[in-house]
Parts: sequence; C-alpha cells; structure tokens
Amino acid sequence: MDTASHIALAADLLGVFFFAVSGSLLAARKGFDIVGSLLLASLASLGGGVARDLIIDVPPAAFTDPAYLLPPLLATVLVYFVFSGVERVKRVLVVFDAAGLALFCITGTIKALEVGLNPVSAVLLGVTTAVGGGLLRDVVANEIPQLFDPRDIYALPAMLGAVIVTVLYLTDSFTLVTGTIAASLVFSFRVLAWRYGWHAPLAARSPATQK
Amino acid sequence: MDTASHIALAADLLGVFFFAVSGSLLAARKGFDIVGSLLLASLASLGGGVARDLIIDVPPAAFTDPAYLLPPLLATVLVYFVFSGVERVKRVLVVFDAAGLALFCITGTIKALEVGLNPVSAVLLGVTTAVGGGLLRDVVANEIPQLFDPRDIYALPAMLGAVIVTVLYLTDSFTLVTGTIAASLVFSFRVLAWRYGWHAPLAARSPATQK
Amino acid sequence: MDTASHIALAADLLGVFFFAVSGSLLAARKGFDIVGSLLLASLASLGGGVARDLIIDVPPAAFTDPAYLLPPLLATVLVYFVFSGVERVKRVLVVFDAAGLALFCITGTIKALEVGLNPVSAVLLGVTTAVGGGLLRDVVANEIPQLFDPRDIYALPAMLGAVIVTVLYLTDSFTLVTGTIAASLVFSFRVLAWRYGWHAPLAARSPATQK
Repeated sequence: MDTASHIALAADLLGVFFFAVSGSLLAARKGFDIVGSLLLASLASLGGGVARDLIIDVPPAAFTDPAYLLPPLLATVLVYFVFSGVERVKRVLVVFDAAGLALFCITGTIKALEVGLNPVSAVLLGVTTAVGGGLLRDVVANEIPQLFDPRDIYALPAMLGAVIVTVLYLTDSFTLVTGTIAASLVFSFRVLAWRYGWHAPLAARSPATQK
Repeated sequence: MDTASHIALAADLLGVFFFAVSGSLLAARKGFDIVGSLLLASLASLGGGVARDLIIDVPPAAFTDPAYLLPPLLATVLVYFVFSGVERVKRVLVVFDAAGLALFCITGTIKALEVGLNPVSAVLLGVTTAVGGGLLRDVVANEIPQLFDPRDIYALPAMLGAVIVTVLYLTDSFTLVTGTIAASLVFSFRVLAWRYGWHAPLAARSPATQK
Repeated sequence: MDTASHIALAADLLGVFFFAVSGSLLAARKGFDIVGSLLLASLASLGGGVARDLIIDVPPAAFTDPAYLLPPLLATVLVYFVFSGVERVKRVLVVFDAAGLALFCITGTIKALEVGLNPVSAVLLGVTTAVGGGLLRDVVANEIPQLFDPRDIYALPAMLGAVIVTVLYLTDSFTLVTGTIAASLVFSFRVLAWRYGWHAPLAARSPATQK
C-alpha cells in the first residue's frame, strides 16, 4: 500500500492548503487582522488532521513536520493580496472548503485503514477529519457551522467519499486514478448541492422550531 | 473489579444513547437536517468519551467499537419519526441530557480509577466526561451551554456523583446496586434543580454584568 | 536543562492561576453562577496545557497532579469575594489574561523543546498552549475570542515570546533571568497593544466585509 500512502500525503498537504484558504477568507469576511487570518487558516487546515492523529495515537503531523505550516502562511498572504479582486467571498470560500473536504475525507480514511482500524471506524475517522477543521473554523469565528446549514448538503459527500475509499482500499483497488475520481465525486456533489440548494430531510418531520 | 467494568460498559452505551437523543432533539429545535441531526447526536454522545479516552491515553472506544455508532443512528431515526408528537422539546431534551449526565459521570470516574488515576483526578475526569459532550453539542449549535445557565444547576450533580462513585470504588462498595443508586441521585438532583429552578450563588457577590 | 524545567513548572502553575482568574472574571461578567465560574476558570487555565500534553503525548498534568486544581478554586473564591470592589472587569481580565499568555508561551515552548520537537513545531506548540485556554474560554462563553479582535494585538506577543525562548534554549542561554525578561516582554507588548489600541493590518487589503 505504498502508493496509497503517497497519494494520501500529497492529498493531505493539498487539502491543508484548501482549508487554509477557506480560513483566511472567513477571517477577511469577519474583518479580522492578518494575524487572525493566519491563526484561523491554521486552525481550519490543521485542526481536523490533529484530531485524527490524536485519535489514532500517532504524533500529529502538523507538529512534527514544519512543511504543514507553509499552506496557512501561503493562504494568508494570498488572501491579503488577492482578496481585493474577489467579489464573491462566500462563493470562493465554499469552493475551497469543498476541495479540502474532498481530499481530507480520503486522507483521513486511508490513514485510519493503514493503522488497522475496522472499516466502520475508518469511515467515521475520515468524516471527522474532513468536517473537523471546518467545524472548528466556523465555531471559533462565531458562525453557524456550514456543517449544520439545512439549506444545502455538507457532510453527506464526505461520508460517501469515505465509504467509497474504504471499499476501494479493502478490494485493493485504491490507486491514484480511483482516488482522484473519488475526490472529484465528493467535490462535485458538495459544490452542486450548494449551487442548486439540494437539501436533506429535516431532523424532525414536523419541524416545530421552538425555544 | 470485573463487575465495575461491566456496569461501566453498559452504563456507557446507555449514556451514549441518552446524549445522542439530546443532540438530535437540539438539531430538530434548531431546524437542522437529518444529517446534521446524526452529526450533532454523534458529537454530543461520543465527544465526552473521546476526550476522556484521549486524556487517559487509551484508544477511543467510539473509534474502535462500531457498536458506539448505533445509539446516534437510533436517536436520529427516533427523533425524526417520534418528534411530531413531542410538544415540549426543551423538557424532553433536559431529561435525556440529565440521564446521560448521570451515567457518564459514573463511567468516566470508574474508567479513570481503573487506569490508576488518583481520586481527585478521577473525579475531574468523570466530570469532564459527563459535561464534555453536552458542552460540545451546545457550542457547535451556537447555544449558550446549559452548563453555564445560572437559572439552574447542571455540573454540581455530576461532581457529586463522581465523588460518591470514587468513595464507593475506593471502599470496594461499588456494585450494580450502589452504582444505580448513585446514578439515580445525580439524575434526580439535576432534574429537580431544573424543574424547581434551584440555583447556586452567582460568580460574583455583586453581579455587575457590564461589558 | 534542569533549571529550565523548574522555571517551566513554576511558570506553568502561575500561568494557570492567571488564566483561571480571567475565566472567573468572564463568568462574573456573563452572570454565570459560582459553579460555572469554577468550570470556566478550569477550562481557561487547564485547556491549553491539556491540548499541549495530548499533542506531545504525555499524560496531561492537570489530570495527574491535583495541585493544578487549586488555582481555579482559588480564582473562583477570589473573584467571588473581591469582585465587588472591581470596577473595570474587562481591564482586570485583560491584564490577567496577558500574564497567563506570557507565561504559557514560555512553558509550552520549553516543554516542546524538552521532548525533542523541532524549533518550528516548538514555537507552534508554545503559541497553541498560550492562546488555547483563552480561546476555549471565549468560545464556550459565546464571546468573540479576544484572539480575533482586530482592534488590538493578541497572538503576536505570544509568537514573539515563543521564538525568543526557542533561541535562548537552543543557544543554552535560557535561565531564570532571561526567561523572566522574555515573559515581561510578552506581557508588556500585549498590555501596551491593548491599552493604546495598536493593531495589525487587516486580513484583506480591501476589507469588503460582506456576507
């Protein structure tokens, strides 16, 4: 499974970058300063992976490999200089967030399978990794987490992606090609759900939203 | 201490179910969709235990034993189909939350004592386990945590329960019967405090709540 | 490096006390009760250190050494009895928070270096330790974290302190004297930034804070 771990590492760093941009964009939208941008980028991009590594009891990559700090730095600089031209912050944020989600549900699941977790737990860890950073980002910035927005679909694509990757891995069919296809599916599902306002049934059939 | 660990396991799974229902009920009240309901149920019910297991450095049960995922699934389905008939969501939520609190302060404390923590730390870990999931649930759903609501009493019953269980355990009197009595005490204390608006003194004698 | 670890321990306990007071003061300002005050004090003062210890995979000091529970207790009692005379809660809170920040960025960094983390990761862990507890405190109390307030500077002093301490440690110049000077610098920088409203550039050059 050497190929798998290589794909996972590359996807991990790329996913870190995407989530970092989503963090810096949210910081810009909330009027934070550039240090807050760096911190929110770091939390959004490294939070999910640190949680994942703590759970499977390996040293968190973000705290052993300084390379993980480059994506948040890059994202902060990028948002600072490029933001001026960006008209629709929310739209760009959602797209970057979706790209991070697509990659992290795959890396998280693969890492879990490689340390020997059972398939169900591997899916759970993949989803945790994928939604964790974005959840932390939204919570500390005092936003209602995208995760819980009933107007579109957020976690379902990540769950689907984690299941697909688990099946691929267990049938020895996880390769760069199949992994990329899985990530593309998750990304497309998420972006289309957001774009066209697809939504899942509410938590209660008769949504008596009362205090 | 075989009896103790059996009681702890059963109580743990039951506690997971109670907190899962509280999570799904909150999701319903906030108008989240069914996937959000499942996620909030999972976070509320598994969050405290995962924190506990990370702190005592054992593999988190939620990520090694797929059985832990059934209660959140069950709670989500239950709230989806049964909710229509539930008039007073807040009331039901508090009762389920109290049941989870009662069981988790016991399981958390016992688990801590079994891995050899000193009594004071065991109490602290029991309280952390008991209030952790509910705190996460309220924070990510952007609610003021029940934990901090000064209009009734929340954490005190859990502290009391953790102390009682520690004394029982250290005097070799922790059995199914005494454990059940302890849990009932915590549950009753919490529900009565909420029902009759018992409250503790404020944090400051002259509560100059100013910005 | 025996001196270093002694300084770190003393600074750690003192830092715990400062953050604990900041937690109890926030509880008082939010109108929480005395149990909520104790819990917020504990979370603010122990949260950053527990995160740090989980990341470097040592048993969290707060859960092995009961001495760590005394500062939150003391802070709760102190705020309860002394608060009446405190006119400017926010001001006192900021000063205590700054003192905790100054000590924790040093203890966190030293602890990281002592377990063999590379310099960059040690700085990251020092900053995480320093800002972690305060971030948790603000998030669970449903406040916009001080960390992200663009009207003054919060994390930058901690980053600077972590870098200074890393350089001191690596050049074998970390002593009680140099450590105290570093802590004083961080504290002064933070308090002056707050007092005179120094601020960093915003996250985006053209801050189009739009939804």
